Amino acid sequence: MGNEQLEQLRVKLDDVNLKLLDIINERAKLVQEIGQVKKTQGVNRFDPVRERKMLDMIAEKNEGPFDTATLQHIFKQIFKLSLELQEDDSRNTLLV
Amino acid sequence: MGNEQLEQLRVKLDDVNLKLLDIINERAKLVQEIGQVKKTQGVNRFDPVRERKMLDMIAEKNEGPFDTATLQHIFKQIFKLSLELQEDDSRNTLLV
Repeated sequence: MGNEQLEQLRVKLDDVNLKLLDIINERAKLVQEIGQVKKTQGVNRFDPVRERKMLDMIAEKNEGPFDTATLQHIFKQIFKLSLELQEDDSRNTLLV
Repeated sequence: MGNEQLEQLRVKLDDVNLKLLDIINERAKLVQEIGQVKKTQGVNRFDPVRERKMLDMIAEKNEGPFDTATLQHIFKQIFKLSLELQEDDSRNTLLV
């Protein structure tokens, strides 16, 4: 019985992992688009004020079980990796 | 025009951030449930074989723009923090 329950929860977890994968990549595409717009405007890609606002929104909307500090840590990682993705885009543009 | 476009993309990004927040917390709830079931079975919470399978699924299903190594890095962080969440649950159980 326990094993069956565990198996069901794991099927759900796999499904959630795939949703998470989709959303993270959807987010990355948006960040790339934003990077393109900023590039045409000659604006710096890294915007600490905007990042702070996004982190504040996480704090405001978080209903757990993760605490806000943990979630902000995950989001900061994603912000950092997204910025690196934009930098790779610029580097590729320079190479072609 | 560029600013309007940027504003629209940021509204979309805020929306995606909230979806991401929901999914991460939904995942955390499932992991807590799995932790409870494992506890009644006396099984170790950390399961490297299961983690490997989840990371392989990420590799298989990833369509970018993030590369697989980056995504696996993000997921490993989430796995680690989820395990800590389960440990907090156990600690709280011990305290009451």
